[in-house]
Amino acid sequence: MFTDLPEDELRRYRSPQTAPDDFDEFWARTLTESQDRWFAPRVVPVETGLTAIEVFDVTFAGFGGQEIKAWLRVPAGSTGPLPAVVEYIGYGGGRGRAIESLTWAAAGYAHLQMDSRGQGSTWSVGDTPDDSASSPQIPGFLTRGISSPDSFYYRRLMTDAVLAVDAARALEQVDGSRVAVLGGSQGGGLALAAAALQTDLRVAVAYVPFLCDFPRATVITNANPYHEVVSYLATHRDHVDLVYRTLSYFDGVNFAARSKTPVRMSAALMDEICPPSTVFAAFNAYAGEKEITVWPYNGHEGGGIDSAAETLAVFKELLG
Amino acid sequence: MFTDLPEDELRRYRSPQTAPDDFDEFWARTLTESQDRWFAPRVVPVETGLTAIEVFDVTFAGFGGQEIKAWLRVPAGSTGPLPAVVEYIGYGGGRGRAIESLTWAAAGYAHLQMDSRGQGSTWSVGDTPDDSASSPQIPGFLTRGISSPDSFYYRRLMTDAVLAVDAARALEQVDGSRVAVLGGSQGGGLALAAAALQTDLRVAVAYVPFLCDFPRATVITNANPYHEVVSYLATHRDHVDLVYRTLSYFDGVNFAARSKTPVRMSAALMDEICPPSTVFAAFNAYAGEKEITVWPYNGHEGGGIDSAAETLAVFKELLG
Amino acid sequence: MFTDLPEDELRRYRSPQTAPDDFDEFWARTLTESQDRWFAPRVVPVETGLTAIEVFDVTFAGFGGQEIKAWLRVPAGSTGPLPAVVEYIGYGGGRGRAIESLTWAAAGYAHLQMDSRGQGSTWSVGDTPDDSASSPQIPGFLTRGISSPDSFYYRRLMTDAVLAVDAARALEQVDGSRVAVLGGSQGGGLALAAAALQTDLRVAVAYVPFLCDFPRATVITNANPYHEVVSYLATHRDHVDLVYRTLSYFDGVNFAARSKTPVRMSAALMDEICPPSTVFAAFNAYAGEKEITVWPYNGHEGGGIDSAAETLAVFKELLG
Amino acid sequence: MFTDLPEDELRRYRSPQTAPDDFDEFWARTLTESQDRWFAPRVVPVETGLTAIEVFDVTFAGFGGQEIKAWLRVPAGSTGPLPAVVEYIGYGGGRGRAIESLTWAAAGYAHLQMDSRGQGSTWSVGDTPDDSASSPQIPGFLTRGISSPDSFYYRRLMTDAVLAVDAARALEQVDGSRVAVLGGSQGGGLALAAAALQTDLRVAVAYVPFLCDFPRATVITNANPYHEVVSYLATHRDHVDLVYRTLSYFDGVNFAARSKTPVRMSAALMDEICPPSTVFAAFNAYAGEKEITVWPYNGHEGGGIDSAAETLAVFKELLG
Amino acid sequence: MFTDLPEDELRRYRSPQTAPDDFDEFWARTLTESQDRWFAPRVVPVETGLTAIEVFDVTFAGFGGQEIKAWLRVPAGSTGPLPAVVEYIGYGGGRGRAIESLTWAAAGYAHLQMDSRGQGSTWSVGDTPDDSASSPQIPGFLTRGISSPDSFYYRRLMTDAVLAVDAARALEQVDGSRVAVLGGSQGGGLALAAAALQTDLRVAVAYVPFLCDFPRATVITNANPYHEVVSYLATHRDHVDLVYRTLSYFDGVNFAARSKTPVRMSAALMDEICPPSTVFAAFNAYAGEKEITVWPYNGHEGGGIDSAAETLAVFKELLG
Amino acid sequence: MFTDLPEDELRRYRSPQTAPDDFDEFWARTLTESQDRWFAPRVVPVETGLTAIEVFDVTFAGFGGQEIKAWLRVPAGSTGPLPAVVEYIGYGGGRGRAIESLTWAAAGYAHLQMDSRGQGSTWSVGDTPDDSASSPQIPGFLTRGISSPDSFYYRRLMTDAVLAVDAARALEQVDGSRVAVLGGSQGGGLALAAAALQTDLRVAVAYVPFLCDFPRATVITNANPYHEVVSYLATHRDHVDLVYRTLSYFDGVNFAARSKTPVRMSAALMDEICPPSTVFAAFNAYAGEKEITVWPYNGHEGGGIDSAAETLAVFKELLG
Repeated sequence: MFTDLPEDELRRYRSPQTAPDDFDEFWARTLTESQDRWFAPRVVPVETGLTAIEVFDVTFAGFGGQEIKAWLRVPAGSTGPLPAVVEYIGYGGGRGRAIESLTWAAAGYAHLQMDSRGQGSTWSVGDTPDDSASSPQIPGFLTRGISSPDSFYYRRLMTDAVLAVDAARALEQVDGSRVAVLGGSQGGGLALAAAALQTDLRVAVAYVPFLCDFPRATVITNANPYHEVVSYLATHRDHVDLVYRTLSYFDGVNFAARSKTPVRMSAALMDEICPPSTVFAAFNAYAGEKEITVWPYNGHEGGGIDSAAETLAVFKELLG
Repeated sequence: MFTDLPEDELRRYRSPQTAPDDFDEFWARTLTESQDRWFAPRVVPVETGLTAIEVFDVTFAGFGGQEIKAWLRVPAGSTGPLPAVVEYIGYGGGRGRAIESLTWAAAGYAHLQMDSRGQGSTWSVGDTPDDSASSPQIPGFLTRGISSPDSFYYRRLMTDAVLAVDAARALEQVDGSRVAVLGGSQGGGLALAAAALQTDLRVAVAYVPFLCDFPRATVITNANPYHEVVSYLATHRDHVDLVYRTLSYFDGVNFAARSKTPVRMSAALMDEICPPSTVFAAFNAYAGEKEITVWPYNGHEGGGIDSAAETLAVFKELLG
Repeated sequence: MFTDLPEDELRRYRSPQTAPDDFDEFWARTLTESQDRWFAPRVVPVETGLTAIEVFDVTFAGFGGQEIKAWLRVPAGSTGPLPAVVEYIGYGGGRGRAIESLTWAAAGYAHLQMDSRGQGSTWSVGDTPDDSASSPQIPGFLTRGISSPDSFYYRRLMTDAVLAVDAARALEQVDGSRVAVLGGSQGGGLALAAAALQTDLRVAVAYVPFLCDFPRATVITNANPYHEVVSYLATHRDHVDLVYRTLSYFDGVNFAARSKTPVRMSAALMDEICPPSTVFAAFNAYAGEKEITVWPYNGHEGGGIDSAAETLAVFKELLG
Repeated sequence: MFTDLPEDELRRYRSPQTAPDDFDEFWARTLTESQDRWFAPRVVPVETGLTAIEVFDVTFAGFGGQEIKAWLRVPAGSTGPLPAVVEYIGYGGGRGRAIESLTWAAAGYAHLQMDSRGQGSTWSVGDTPDDSASSPQIPGFLTRGISSPDSFYYRRLMTDAVLAVDAARALEQVDGSRVAVLGGSQGGGLALAAAALQTDLRVAVAYVPFLCDFPRATVITNANPYHEVVSYLATHRDHVDLVYRTLSYFDGVNFAARSKTPVRMSAALMDEICPPSTVFAAFNAYAGEKEITVWPYNGHEGGGIDSAAETLAVFKELLG
Repeated sequence: MFTDLPEDELRRYRSPQTAPDDFDEFWARTLTESQDRWFAPRVVPVETGLTAIEVFDVTFAGFGGQEIKAWLRVPAGSTGPLPAVVEYIGYGGGRGRAIESLTWAAAGYAHLQMDSRGQGSTWSVGDTPDDSASSPQIPGFLTRGISSPDSFYYRRLMTDAVLAVDAARALEQVDGSRVAVLGGSQGGGLALAAAALQTDLRVAVAYVPFLCDFPRATVITNANPYHEVVSYLATHRDHVDLVYRTLSYFDGVNFAARSKTPVRMSAALMDEICPPSTVFAAFNAYAGEKEITVWPYNGHEGGGIDSAAETLAVFKELLG
Repeated sequence: MFTDLPEDELRRYRSPQTAPDDFDEFWARTLTESQDRWFAPRVVPVETGLTAIEVFDVTFAGFGGQEIKAWLRVPAGSTGPLPAVVEYIGYGGGRGRAIESLTWAAAGYAHLQMDSRGQGSTWSVGDTPDDSASSPQIPGFLTRGISSPDSFYYRRLMTDAVLAVDAARALEQVDGSRVAVLGGSQGGGLALAAAALQTDLRVAVAYVPFLCDFPRATVITNANPYHEVVSYLATHRDHVDLVYRTLSYFDGVNFAARSKTPVRMSAALMDEICPPSTVFAAFNAYAGEKEITVWPYNGHEGGGIDSAAETLAVFKELLG
């Protein structure tokens, strides 16, 4: 069943979310501090048994210069720099195994798939720790360090996402002027952040993105991960203002309003995990060129393989 | 939690299943009737946007000469016949979209992915109807036509699976002497049937196979699809003997005892859908060369991507 | 809890459903084709152990002249033609056993209970196969053949329902001028179809009918069977228009607008399976004389035995 | 899935339940006290709209002389006394409406359907209050007054069940020498009690009976109503001995060992509510002539309508 | 997720509930009848092992003069009368063990915790029976005796609650001029009743109260206990008016409109058991001085320990 | 229902768990390293509104000298050192609010309730962060840092638990020669660790302890937290040996075999979270004086308030 507003109301919906005064300053400071600890990505070939696609194990400088893992996949025998797709992973998973996720390389792109620090367990494995103190939290990642923007988990993960693009551009296999960012759910939320905080991206693709419109998302669904915030506030009843203040620095709605990158989004009208109004909250606020695909009969799987096919056409047009 | 016997008992377990006297005659007759209606596969290239892998839409002669759809995927630019992997799909799904399932072609094989007649809807799409009368049944496929071996749905689907190998061998892209069959769950059950009913296969790979040891499978789990049989018998209380007689013609345990094809199987100790004893029932009865991988902490997903990696090594050794 | 609109809004609600231009032509053609294959019903007495009610096994000509089973029950020792109640069965079930459903015969009517082709398993048994090709579908019956009106399962079942009245009128035990149709849920949907497509019925009784207002029904509940359509469209994302076009030929709303038969309907305000707005969609569109009973505190069981009591009074008045 | 022991172990299983020393004295005293307050049943015809079956509203003297309601149904126009079926109702329900449950009257028997005091709400209505003080209890009936045999709810209900036979025999429509008792689940438990505490019954029919083998039943299922005992003991941790002592006076195992009435029982191997070992506990202990039907693929619905058909044959043989 | 209206609509919401004409007369009569059977509370010291708090087992005269149990807890070594907190228990539980619920005594108050007749089992034990006839009902307490105000269970329990204040005032440890009533859920509903029916209470504290706004509560949630009413009406379809008439005598909305006691309430916006609009229904109708705390991210646990802290401050101010 | 072995088998059950060779060396090194960073506890009075119990906010030196929070509660007006109860918290919760958990102080003991680093959110709040890098993990705490004993979360938490006793002994309110440790579930597991790693404790009380017999616990229940290990291994299929090696350093079975502290344990026969065999695994291996209470009809709540009453008696005897 439809889980949210009718489609015509979705298209008019505006989130109550606003950016804190120091939003831009916060992110400028955050990125500068991490860029100061930059190192060139390390790239090691991996033996996979695949013959049409080559895979490399990449280590790049993320938040605070911490080492972040990624896979680089390129078509076998490709010479010269390729347009690149930087991909972010959904909640709970990691970069997975070297032989997974062959679509983008099979389509002729350099595909850099970033690991999610500390996650990498529930549905695909990861190899990157999350290095920081963890204040009391609900199991999961959405309330880790939520008592301040500086300590919040997503400050680190979003910085990783922005720096993954820098890392991609530093690879010899990549044509740095032709880079896209892409992801679904949490990966979509990270793509929106990167789209706003990076420059000169050709396109951002965000399927059914998570991390958007927290004030509404947390009160219209019982599904995790948004519900983690509710679980936290159910005992930390005195932290409401503090928690929503923290979240405002990481809300896709606020990134959207600052983004110049063309975007392709999707929303699913039966999505209980990332309800469509929260996706439209970001889409309707989006400052750059934008298109959205609505999947009326899907839940959080959204367009699935059909979205991939759609994106292949988008990339052909915008990435070359 | 473990859903079945301890591993040492699994390795000793023998199914009570026995083959009906006319089992071999039934299948010889069934295959002959369909082979009489054989036609050469039709192969049409598909535009996908992928550059490293070429995809073809294949139509081949299945049960009763009915048209069965499949995808053929080969590495782009390959010349000369390739070793081939014929893949069968899990319950409910179909061959999916052309751009799905790139692993085997990316590893250098011709990959023929057979559609499942009449299914192709719950998790991936299909394009092949199931042409026959349907007597009263539980929603699903495991009780369709179950009142006799001749009318049972899996007679048609298993015949398709056997003939898919014939179709693969008739393709110009395929080296017919180097063919493997592969599948998980229902696909694994079909691979066991093809391994017994086809000749000269290099290897059959059956992950957590379904369609094995019906007498036990139906009474030790409440999970569908095995539970469909129970749902049917819960109202058709007078059909018990008739139903189990039908199922005996399609039980992987009976195919296993007749198979000369080397097999690689897997079982998962926390699998509620295809409990591990039902898998070991087929493995322990298997007449050909055999190995099994046990995944102690997995449910029906079994080895997932790690099984694929393992199979790449198996194929390197046995398919070339 | 109430699952739908408040009652005052229900009474004003109008479905967005519209009939395709060739709706009437489609049904005229469909019925004519089947009537061309008509044969006189075959009636065989059944030994049941009951003494007050006699039961007969009836076989009549349904869609395409296919053989459809039914039970005929009459009061023991009745002479001369009786007014008749033709009953249709809810989703998943069949005509059941000869000794079930004694109410209408015990009340003095000839009771013809039609089997549902291919169903007859989940809660009561049936004996009638569904003879046709089945394209890829969700387990169940609501997406069987859904890619076109001609191949859709309900074309066959609704035609059976219309012809069951013809069969009843051809029975020596029946006074053909005094016939009612009756059913709950799917049976109610069939009653609405028969009410529109048959002539000279005394009354149609449709308890909490299914198969009404598909555009709304499919998006306001997660309960099957309506949800089968959503499950289908969740993978067949490119079939949306095609599917809803097919459904428009079988929507109770469109039958209602054409019906001259007096109708007695019921709706339940806590019904999640056939939400009350979908029932009112048909009721509010109904062209004939009409009454509706609202059960505020019931789910899909609706009025249960209390509806039967109510209907006994209706029959006394309208059937005699 | 099978919920209990394999069938061969079921057939050998002996319950640990034992009867308290004063079991017989307790019941003799209980029945005598109530019989002292006996009054002749009051019988009032009911207008139902049925023509083949006549229904009467009966009020008879139950426990402590309290007024218990029942329906009497007989074939219309029957003259002279009929053999009778006294039926008890499953947990939560009541005698229902006058037009329900027509099978036994339609088969030519006088059918007395006893109301269950205080229940009569969850799935069928009742009209009889339970008159007594209620000590702290879990919602439901299985812990009402459980702190002593004298105050336990089932002392009153079982006494009603025994006296319902006396009432039946006092009806002019009944041939008191040909009486059967029958019920499913709780009704089956009551039938076992009546079979032991009444005299000269022709047969007792107990489908998947409840109220048997409490020591085992309460610890091998999480399903209510048996679980009510566990819920009670989960807080009343100091009442364990007291509770099981009370239950021993009402356990079908203890009634079975004292019964001279021929019995027909059934058990279902997938029954989670009345697990089959608890049924076999009573059956294996049964002192009278006995037969049991095992339904291997059913849950608590047991044989359903097929049991009714089977019972019609039993009645034909034993009741005439 | 929010389970009800937005907060601004909650603050304006008015229940459709109205009081029957004889509401005041009914309660005056009810209380008078019971007060006529009053006896002085019996108080027996209990050995608990606690040293800072003394506990007494209290028996006082409740409805109809029946004996109701309670615990009295006071700070050890207190001399002279103390302000008192009379507490009522949530649905299903009883007064619990002597060593539970130490907060109010540890804060210096005499704490009288009343047992709930007949409940006292599901989550804490009780020791008080409910003495009366029980007509057919849904398992639980909300439909016990619901066919008339006189026989309804809550007539007895609410009378107990009112008389518990009288009992407290009769204790030597209590300063009868300084008494508060307090409870959560059912306990909150009882506190609202006592606040209206008692005189000179300093404050009533009702956390997420139950028993408010039955016309709405029963149709906007599927959670028990409100759903018990729906379960009852789902079979007793002809009792709707009768049931809601009974409930109107016990609705917190009607008590609120008559209350002169200052009240402190709370509501939780994610409460499915006592949806916040039903709480605001009572709050908005409340005639006395009033404040409400809204917990936006909590379910029926409401403010939990944080409510207790808040109440300590309230008591310091209003009880001294 | 019983979730595990029959009680007589429980009493004989021996875990397959063994201690790694360097178990004692590992813990000696771990504790020494942290003791080197010891600081005297800081104690700050808290204003609570309670008058009979005084509460202090305590900060003490935990693992690596990190600051761990605790509450100290003592009877108001107590003079001179008191025997002390050091309490550990169940999984997910924290030390809660100052006014919670009054039992032990009300009984005359100094009660030090230790916060659980990084938890303190799901059911009670906490105030202590967990300071360390977190490798990929399942949401929760049982797989945090599980790739080695040195990085495992429970190395830090168990060290905190041992040092909490040192902290208690350093408080002026405490008689260091009379200290007990106590906890339920995770708190019970921590109590077993402290009982083995601390000296001269009077008694350890471990209710239904968690963290025992990992080899069995992880495969006989699907309930979290044990299931977190399974979830982790379901994707990290190559980490099995490594994970169980890590867990062996923290298994209550291994602590039990080394403990000289008298212990009082409890187990619940219907516990799905900490199945009773895993509790008996520790109890049966326990080297010190020991007693166990078995709660046959309880789940993980075990003896609840009745355990507290039982423990009051134990403390009276062993703590004074």
